[in-house]
Amino acid sequence: MKIDVAASINDTRSELMVNRTIIVIDVLRATSSIVTAIDRGTAGVIPVKTVHQAKQLKREGDLLAGERFCKKIAGFDLGNSPTELLHADLEGRRIILTSTNGTRVIEKSCKAAHVLAGSFLNAEACAHAAIALGREVLIICAGTQDQFSLEDGLCAGMIVAEIRRAADTEPVLNDFAKAMYWSYLHNEHNLEDALLQCENGTRLTQLGHLEDVLYCSRTNQTSTVPSLYNQIMTPFNRTV
Amino acid sequence: MKIDVAASINDTRSELMVNRTIIVIDVLRATSSIVTAIDRGTAGVIPVKTVHQAKQLKREGDLLAGERFCKKIAGFDLGNSPTELLHADLEGRRIILTSTNGTRVIEKSCKAAHVLAGSFLNAEACAHAAIALGREVLIICAGTQDQFSLEDGLCAGMIVAEIRRAADTEPVLNDFAKAMYWSYLHNEHNLEDALLQCENGTRLTQLGHLEDVLYCSRTNQTSTVPSLYNQIMTPFNRTV
Repeated sequence: MKIDVAASINDTRSELMVNRTIIVIDVLRATSSIVTAIDRGTAGVIPVKTVHQAKQLKREGDLLAGERFCKKIAGFDLGNSPTELLHADLEGRRIILTSTNGTRVIEKSCKAAHVLAGSFLNAEACAHAAIALGREVLIICAGTQDQFSLEDGLCAGMIVAEIRRAADTEPVLNDFAKAMYWSYLHNEHNLEDALLQCENGTRLTQLGHLEDVLYCSRTNQTSTVPSLYNQIMTPFNRTV
Repeated sequence: MKIDVAASINDTRSELMVNRTIIVIDVLRATSSIVTAIDRGTAGVIPVKTVHQAKQLKREGDLLAGERFCKKIAGFDLGNSPTELLHADLEGRRIILTSTNGTRVIEKSCKAAHVLAGSFLNAEACAHAAIALGREVLIICAGTQDQFSLEDGLCAGMIVAEIRRAADTEPVLNDFAKAMYWSYLHNEHNLEDALLQCENGTRLTQLGHLEDVLYCSRTNQTSTVPSLYNQIMTPFNRTV
């Protein structure tokens, strides 16, 4: 089994996406939000690039969620805050989500065979889903404005660790996957501190979102793995 | 003191180079070769991008050195092998060096205030030189074909560790610098094995250059720090 990790969407070539299982990671906060929303029984999350697209897609009963530069978008029902989603009434409703980085990367991953949303919250489940799908894996760190974000790299390293633990054979890692795996191992028992030290962790804390940073650093809280099908993310079904 | 590490030359913006001390790292093998050559008393190393440039610059007594895709260039005096340089007669002679990655990155770093060549062989000395220069630091991992190379990242992490050890104040690291620092700490006592696992380490070993890989994984063998001035690398002088 081959696992490549890409530092950002710009660091990967589109031919690496074809026929693969792509795991998109935007720990702070898009993919943590998607995992939380789906775990809480939403009818699905539609990731879109622009505010305009989000508004156009909205049908009755849908919720608009999203942020630009860590702040909730004016007129939207929800921000891009996973802890806000914990207290919202989501049951059976679709969420249309737009964020600065993560949702854009999910949209760009459309050439893949499967697109999963990964975070610390579902790292082990994500690894098991990737193994069950049996394809080569490409983990894309969404980053921030196309720059590498440490929390995404650490989460990529954790998913590599979980795949190594669960797979029958030793996976083959590219150089960046090895670097992220080792970086994760160094912080394995100290992830909360590590996330608070990241540039995004610091910025979000300063903007009053400490609770989100702490929540997003929790590992293996759920077995939910959001999977993209027809532009909508719903729970991954292993029988697919 | 601010330290940014860039995964490749494409991962940095040119405004980040201005007025900084840039440390270029191409462990396997350009910067390890430059450090070795200057340590052995060469009159200087001129890094150039193309074979044509190298031939045009050659004057009597100069040595042409270089590789393309890990192999010595036809008609050149030397390859890009640091262990070959250990046995060559270099005293007082200029070396004109062209390699697939490292020399190109040095050339592209011309906007910097200072350009130093870093490797495991001179990591501590490189850190001390960067501290002495007193500017913000940008460490560029040369990589391979603009892709991240693990050995360069680990070396960047070691230079960060050496700066942290020697500097009066705690340096401020960007996210990628933190990831490389942690990845290095995980391998600190096992660098030879780590280098043999890297994609370039594996490739060079298969091509018969195991001795180079082992040599390039040795740490702090010299206090020589090559520094670029007027397109030629000579020993860094702290009084500059």
